[in-house]
Parts: sequence; structure tokens; C-alpha cells
Amino acid sequence: MTYTLVLLRHGQSEWNAKNLFTGWVDVPLSEQGEAEAKRGGELLKEEGILPDVLHTSLLRRAISTANLALDKADRHWIPVKRHWRLNERHYGALQGKDKKAIRDEYGEEKFMEWRRSYDTPPPPIEIGSEFSQDADPRYAGEPISQSECLKDVLERMLPYWEDAIVPDLKSGKTVLVAAHGNSLRAIVKHLDGISDEDIAGLNIPTGIPLVYELEEDLKPVKQGGTYLDADAAAAAIQAVANQGK
Amino acid sequence: MTYTLVLLRHGQSEWNAKNLFTGWVDVPLSEQGEAEAKRGGELLKEEGILPDVLHTSLLRRAISTANLALDKADRHWIPVKRHWRLNERHYGALQGKDKKAIRDEYGEEKFMEWRRSYDTPPPPIEIGSEFSQDADPRYAGEPISQSECLKDVLERMLPYWEDAIVPDLKSGKTVLVAAHGNSLRAIVKHLDGISDEDIAGLNIPTGIPLVYELEEDLKPVKQGGTYLDADAAAAAIQAVANQGK
Repeated sequence: MTYTLVLLRHGQSEWNAKNLFTGWVDVPLSEQGEAEAKRGGELLKEEGILPDVLHTSLLRRAISTANLALDKADRHWIPVKRHWRLNERHYGALQGKDKKAIRDEYGEEKFMEWRRSYDTPPPPIEIGSEFSQDADPRYAGEPISQSECLKDVLERMLPYWEDAIVPDLKSGKTVLVAAHGNSLRAIVKHLDGISDEDIAGLNIPTGIPLVYELEEDLKPVKQGGTYLDADAAAAAIQAVANQGK
Repeated sequence: MTYTLVLLRHGQSEWNAKNLFTGWVDVPLSEQGEAEAKRGGELLKEEGILPDVLHTSLLRRAISTANLALDKADRHWIPVKRHWRLNERHYGALQGKDKKAIRDEYGEEKFMEWRRSYDTPPPPIEIGSEFSQDADPRYAGEPISQSECLKDVLERMLPYWEDAIVPDLKSGKTVLVAAHGNSLRAIVKHLDGISDEDIAGLNIPTGIPLVYELEEDLKPVKQGGTYLDADAAAAAIQAVANQGK
């Protein structure tokens, strides 16, 4: 007996398209992002991998992606659980800033460190500033951060993984997690036992369901899982790798 | 201290537009229905009546209405609970049939009895037929009916009201119930103490939030509640009344 986990990264958001740091800013999907989400749901339906329960972040782009995908897969009616612990990495003071402007201001090295180092968060966001979430009712009373590195994301994600997602897996449910580049990288790092160094090179494409079959001890049957559209996933990963060149 | 309950009937579905009996058949919203749902969310936002928790049926037209409305109201992130006990009335053998054809075949009296009598259900749907839900995984193991009158809807809705909705109200949450003409009429009949005879004359317009402030004993502060767009609600109710003439 194995457990089935499906990871789905949200489609393109309006700020991805504008090249702004997003983090916890609650921007909507772009039209392309909506199309990606629907395609993700079609892939689930075609492969007969039908989620029994959904976990999402509290951010619109993941919530809309899940809604659109599940509607296409005729699973719009499954139970839903949402938590900020599945949110994207908090980008601190970079939230709402243009990526090119940040690179020009701080230089390539700092820019890449903030984007890719495992344990160096960007500077914290100023409390009360335009793109801060201090006054957002959805986080009231929660121990949220003002800036995160991937290590921080992993640490705040894990309690939710253990307390909410693992019990659903162990009850035999097919679990869909619709979330973000970095919260999903944190899950994958945890599942596949990826080192702090190697995780920098791992990218998860948007809108393509990534399916993990897990043993009873929650170790993946196949390291890295299986993308439902392997060719599209490989092409998307290659495109990201080429960006850095 | 009062409790706040918001009832929202789904917008027009593709089968409303085609004049077919729908019931538990899981048809999508029409474009007009999507626009109604978004308008419902705008009304919530304008009035500052912001749901803390959502209850829906298991049917796409109520789920989509809630998703669209909550997205407009910036409350897409609230917890969601879904249950078949909030589904539309099961229309039995009439499901999927043209309303005019049924009226021609069975006559006006039978037609109106099936549509409006409190305690006479239509003939049961044939097990395994095209518009039956026997094989639908979302109802597996549940004590679902093969045809319902409004009395049946009230009786199967009440346990969910008591066990799931009332506790949310009593915890002080603003509760949104996104559901159907008949499951909402059942709630209103229960809240306002409407007689079995008088409930036939009560219609709830689509897409306009109906807000009830409830006393601690769950009696409405104002009989009938308050529509957030009272003029639009009155016009819609009048239009339905005129159809019968």
C-alpha cells in the first residue's frame, strides 16, 4: 500500500508577468496562469489521479489555481483546508519591488543570494508599509515572519505537513497540495532528502501536477516524483536553467 | 450580541437558461450566473459584511458562486465546509427533463404540485439512469434520496444546520451559506417559522446576499432578513410572481 500526494504550483500571476517580487502580496493569476491551472486539472482527469482532499495556502493565486484545476477534474466538491504555512516565501523588503531594479541597486551577488541561498533572508519588510501583511485579517494572531529564506519556509511548513497533510495521506486519501514555488520546494526537499546546497538547483514548473507515491514511512517510491506531463515539465525546467546563463 | 448569517443563492446555471429541471445534476453557471456571483461578492464588500467561514453544497453552481463572490470580497482565503445536505432539492424523475414538456405531458396541476407542494415529491429517479447520482463518488455511502419534496429537504438539511452551521454562528463567526433555491428556502422556513402553506409563496432571488442578524436563541432580529440590494431583490421576486400569471 502506498500513499498518493499531488503537488501543484500555481500558474503565472500578474506580478510574475511584470517581473516583481511577490511573496505574500496577494496578486491574482494572469490569463496565462488561469489556462495553466485548467490544463493541470485536465491532466489529473486524463490520468485518473483524482484528489480526495485539497490543501492550499491563503494566497489567491494558489486558491484560484486549485479551484480551476479541480473544476476541470470534476473534483470541485472535495474538502478544502487552507493554511498560511503553505504560503510562498516571504520576500521581506523586496516584496512589490522590480527584480531588475533590485539587481541594479544591490548587485548580482546580493540579488542571487536573496533569491537562492538556503539560509539568508532578504531584509525584513517595514511594518505598515504598502506590501506588508501586518494588518491583514487572515494572519491576525499568527506568528508570521517579516522576511524568510527557504530554511525558514521549511521550518514553518513542517508543522502543517505533520499535523494536517500526513494524517490525510495515512487515511488513504489522494492529497492535492496547491501552493507556491518555495513552499513546494520545501516539501520536496523534505521528502527527497535534498541537501541544503542541492536544493538551490531545484525548480518546480507551474501548473503541471507532480505526483509522489509514498511508502508507509513516507519515503518516495521514486525520488523526485513524476510529472503528469513529463515533456512540458522538462522543457519548463530547462527554460529556467537557461535564464541563469 | 447577535450572530450574522448570510445566505447566497447561486447565480443562473446553464440549465436554468435552458428551462430544464436540474436538482442534483451538476451543471455549471452560465455567464450571467458568473456575473451575478461576482456582483454578490461586491455587495458583501461594499457593505463590509465579510464572511469568516463558508458552507456550500457539493454542487458546482453553488461552489463556483461562492468562489467568485469571495474572490471579489477579498475573502477567498476563509475556511470552507461542504455537504450534500445543502444540495438543491432532488427532482427525482424530472431531473434533466424540459419543464414545458413535463407540463404538457402531466398537466398544469401535477406540474405545479411537483414544483410547489410542501410534501409531495416527484416520482423517484430510475437507478442507473443518465441523470441519477447513484454512481457519483461524492455521495458514496451517504443516505441520499431518489426524489424530494421541500419537507424532505428541510429534514435532511436540519442535522447539518444544527451540527455544523449553528456552532460556527455561536462562535461569533459571520457565516456564509452558498446554496440553492430550495435548501435556502428550508433554512428561511426554519428561521422565520414560516408555515407549510406560506412557504410556497417564498422565492429567494439569485446572487443577492440575504443577511440575517440572529438573537442568541437564533431567532431573526428582523423577520425575513435584509437583502443587500433591496431594490434588485424586490424586482426579482416580483418577476417570479409575474411568471405564474
